[in-house]
Order: sequence, then structure tokens, then C-alpha cells
Amino acid sequence: MRVVCMRCGRERAGDELRCPRCGGPFTVIVDFQYREKVRENFPYIRRWISLGEGNTPLVEVEGVKFKLEFLNPTGSFKDRGSAVLISALAERGVKRISEDSSGNAGASIAAYGALAGMDVEIYVPETARGGKLRQIEAYGARVMRVSGSRDDVAKSAERSGAYYASHVWRPEFRDGIRTLAYELVRDLGKAPAEVYLPTSAGTLLLGVYAGFKHLLDSGVVDRMPTLVAVQTEQVRPLCAAAKGEEYKPPGKVTSIADALVSTNPPLLPEMAEVVRTHGDCVWVTDGEIERAWRWLARRGLLAEPSSAAALAGYWKRGGGEDSVVVLTGSGLKAL
Amino acid sequence: MRVVCMRCGRERAGDELRCPRCGGPFTVIVDFQYREKVRENFPYIRRWISLGEGNTPLVEVEGVKFKLEFLNPTGSFKDRGSAVLISALAERGVKRISEDSSGNAGASIAAYGALAGMDVEIYVPETARGGKLRQIEAYGARVMRVSGSRDDVAKSAERSGAYYASHVWRPEFRDGIRTLAYELVRDLGKAPAEVYLPTSAGTLLLGVYAGFKHLLDSGVVDRMPTLVAVQTEQVRPLCAAAKGEEYKPPGKVTSIADALVSTNPPLLPEMAEVVRTHGDCVWVTDGEIERAWRWLARRGLLAEPSSAAALAGYWKRGGGEDSVVVLTGSGLKAL
Repeated sequence: MRVVCMRCGRERAGDELRCPRCGGPFTVIVDFQYREKVRENFPYIRRWISLGEGNTPLVEVEGVKFKLEFLNPTGSFKDRGSAVLISALAERGVKRISEDSSGNAGASIAAYGALAGMDVEIYVPETARGGKLRQIEAYGARVMRVSGSRDDVAKSAERSGAYYASHVWRPEFRDGIRTLAYELVRDLGKAPAEVYLPTSAGTLLLGVYAGFKHLLDSGVVDRMPTLVAVQTEQVRPLCAAAKGEEYKPPGKVTSIADALVSTNPPLLPEMAEVVRTHGDCVWVTDGEIERAWRWLARRGLLAEPSSAAALAGYWKRGGGEDSVVVLTGSGLKAL
Repeated sequence: MRVVCMRCGRERAGDELRCPRCGGPFTVIVDFQYREKVRENFPYIRRWISLGEGNTPLVEVEGVKFKLEFLNPTGSFKDRGSAVLISALAERGVKRISEDSSGNAGASIAAYGALAGMDVEIYVPETARGGKLRQIEAYGARVMRVSGSRDDVAKSAERSGAYYASHVWRPEFRDGIRTLAYELVRDLGKAPAEVYLPTSAGTLLLGVYAGFKHLLDSGVVDRMPTLVAVQTEQVRPLCAAAKGEEYKPPGKVTSIADALVSTNPPLLPEMAEVVRTHGDCVWVTDGEIERAWRWLARRGLLAEPSSAAALAGYWKRGGGEDSVVVLTGSGLKAL
């Protein structure tokens, strides 16, 4: 397994979180032919810590195709990443992990960490509330409340003394998202023309990109889909960066899309590169998200508002019939 | 499609809810060879109203196999029944339906009814609260609060003027549960030795039984699994009926297993017959359920307490390694 810095190409020597030369994020190099059996595309995992993630339904409703990622075991696509990251850490003998997220990533890491028998500490802002936090606690993770900024919360998790199982920085997490691209091609029998992805920290966008790139390099598909990142009016650093626009984040994010909050994502340069070369970025208002959420719920699809943003983006951009809208997180957590 | 009374064998002439001769429940006769493509085992459905139900994960944790039915589209196994019932009703041109349930069945019928473009009225006790009720509302169903007993709520739904899409009485709903048996055999490559099923109104028990019977009659499996109905200390009319014990329901059900509340299920004679001939019944205490719920959650499986009862039943009865424990409903609704 080769892991290199996405910015300067330096190889990861051990378990460094960031490149010691340039501070960049690492990525897993996928340098082998695609294999039909999904798990064989992760040769560095021998024993899987799995809750049955993946193989989510692809359904078509009124001409729009939806990938129901909210039906993953903990209610979000993050489980694809957690399965791979936690399996990799379990093989390395890691017993105690930390993560910073009061949302879907925190819940997912807490669940897979619990399954692996690890001690899990989830660092959250002291103001965090709601169903996702109670879900994290249900899995038995220790919730550590931190005052200060979101960056302060991340720093506490990183310096906790436990292994920092960051879903943003650890390349194995992002690498696990490749399976979503494999499944879309299997479901459709070909690559979709466009994939609409709610985008915040960028693990979904970059992971799906890596999966399609692997399929393309292996000759399984003959085109890269247009990967459409969907952001909110308030939190759209990627749209701004990709299009060279100015963007000033609000003092406080109040959007109903409460999982799309990364105003300054660490992986922004890599995300912007994918959008510029293989994709697009579109942002939507709270009103548009609410309309999309309601449209979905009134057809039996209970996603979280942040996921409904993908449909709002599809509408706004005028997506075609060969498009797939990814519904990332469950609406049951916010009832 | 032949539909007959389970008690006197009289054929259903039109759309009667109960047998006009004896008042018994109807059942769908499955009189053809099992077909590999699951949907072909429902020849009376031509156009499926589907949210991607079924194909739920089977995972093994510490030697116990769990079928994760809580990962169905609305968070419970009921979606298997709703898909078939609502598809059948849509083909008959039904536009307005009623149902009585403030729980998983109400949410599931509301979602599938919404997808089919039907007006849905869900009748609930006036004291009903909680995540499941908010889920029903999110799907756009009209919630009708009824004072009085649980029977009064059912009567209001039946007499509403809308088509009464009762998950208990309509045979197409129970018939849809057959798919769970098909999947278990596909997942395992053979019939399991025992299946542990939380049991209240009995649609799961009777539907799974019908599926295995179909496989057995078709020569696909060579044995009928032992179907173990799991009930609670407070609500155990089936265990009592099957074993000839006395049972007096409590004045008020206070168990944490709040989906297992049928103290006097209409299908009790049919359920007792299945238990006597092909199964067993075991009841568990709230303490045992709580222990099972916690065990599951601490391993990343967030089921509702009523579902954890199945694991408690497995422990109490001493289930073997060829057993499957069915986790019926999502813990996310009660966060």
C-alpha cells in the first residue's frame, strides 16, 4: 500500500497525519486493475470491520435517480469510509481513537470503533445538541465537549493522546468512499453522466472521484462523470474557489443544511482541482433546500436537509436523466 | 391470485376486509414454484411501488447472525409488506387510504402511500407522541387523533371512508414479508436452523412462515426453520396461547419495547398454530431487553428496544450458530 502526499508527492513513512514536508493531506495510490469483488479493491484490508455498509438502493422517482446512502448502517455514506479506516487501524493494533465531529462522521466512527472494540473519544463543540450526538453516545463513545472555535475542537481531538482517526485527514477514510463509484456503475451498467454530491469537507467528492478514476484507468468505464458539488449559499468556499469568486463566510452558519458547515475545508485545493477538471459546483438557498426536502419526504424519501441540497442543486443546474443524486444522510436523526 | 379465509377457506370475492362467513383473516395462496427473481414470486403485482426495500445486510457479530431489517427505507421490515400492499392497491386504482398505527407500520404505509400519490390518513391514539409520529407527518400523511381504546382507533380507521389499508388484516401486506425468508436462504445458502422474531400483531411471524413454506414446498430448502416468536413479559398472549398458559394483560403497557403492544392480536389463532407446529415462543423482561439493546449499540447496531428483544430471546433460549436474529426497527427514531 503506497500512501503519498497529494501536494508534493512525498511518501508516508509511518502514520503521519500530514505531510512532514509541505503539510499536505495524504492519499492512497490505487495502482492495480479494478476487481469485480469490491473488497479486493482494498488489498491493504485483510479482516473487515463491517456493519454491512454499501449496497444501498438506487431508486428512480419521477425520472430522477437517487442513491440512498442514508440507508447505510449508521444512517450516512460515512460508513463506507469508517469501515476501511477502522479496519486498517484495527490491523495496526490501534486500541484508542479520537475524532472531531458532532455529526454523521462522529456517529459512524463511534459505531465502527465500538465494533472493533476500541475506546472512542468524540470531540464536539460545547454547544452541540441533537439526535446525532445522542446517537454517538448510544454507541458508547465518550463525548468530549470543547469550548472555542471548530478549529479548537479539532486540535483537542488531535492532541488527545488517542490515535486521531480524522475522517478528513486520514486517507483510508476517503479511500473507502471509492466503493460508491463502483456501485453506481454496477447499478446503472455504465457511468452516470452527472453525480450530484452535497459537499462540505470534501471526503465524498474526493472519494467518489478516486473510484471513478480507478474505473476509468482500468477501462471499465469510458468517461468520467461530471461530479457536481452542491453547497449552500452560506457555505460555498468550493464554488468560490473553483470559479475564482470572492467568498466571505458568515459569522455564524444558520442554514438548515447543518451538515454542510465547512467554511474553510483543509482539502479545498484538491476539491477545487476536481471541480475544475471533472466537475462543477452549484450552491443553493435554504428555500431551495426546503423545497427539495419536502419533495423527497412527500415521496417516501426521508433524507436530512443537507442531503436534499443535492436535489436542489440538480434542479438548479438542470440535471439530465443520466444523472444520479446522492442522498447522503438520514432524516430520522432530526425528527 | 387466489385469496382465501385462513379459518374457513372461503374465497375472497372482492375486497372484503374479513371473511363474510366466519370473520376470519384472508391469506394469499402461493401455489406456484419458487422463482429466483424475487419479484416474480408476486405475480399479482405488475408495477412495483418501491423505495428499494429488502436486500438488507446479514452481519455476524461475535458469532451471532443479525438480519438488519432496520435498514429498510423507512427504518423497519414493514416496508416489505407496504411495497406489496400499496402496489396492489395502486393497480386497483385506490386513491385514498387509512391505517391505524402510530409506529413503524404507520410510517411505512405513509411513505409508500405518498410515493403512490395516494391521500393517506393515519389514525393514532390521542396520546401518541415521538419520532415515529413525526416521521408519519414528514411523509405528508394526515394524522387523525382518536380518543378511547386502541380498538376505537382501529374502528375509526376502518370506518373513515378511505380504503382501510390495514397492515394486520390485508393479506397482501403479510404476503410481502415472504421476501425476508427468501433473502435469508439466499444469504446463508441454506435455511437457518432458527429465526428469532420480535412478535406483536404477527405479520412478521406469519409472513416469514409463508416464505419458508413456499421454499419448502418448492424443494429449495429441506427443512422449516424453528420460528421463535419473542414477546415481552407484559405482552405475551402468543406464548400463553401456544403453551396453554393463562395470560392477563396489564392495565397499561409500560415496557420499553413500545412496538410490542398487541395484547389481543386478531391473528392469534394463526400465530399460535405456527408456533405449535414449526416454532417456539419465548418472553423476555425489560431488564433483558435493555441488556440486549446495549450490547447491540456497543457494537454499532442501533436497533429499537423492541428489536433488541429478539436478541434477548436468543440468549434466553440458547440459540445456536445457525440461528438468525432479525433486528426489525431502527433506533434512530427514538433518539
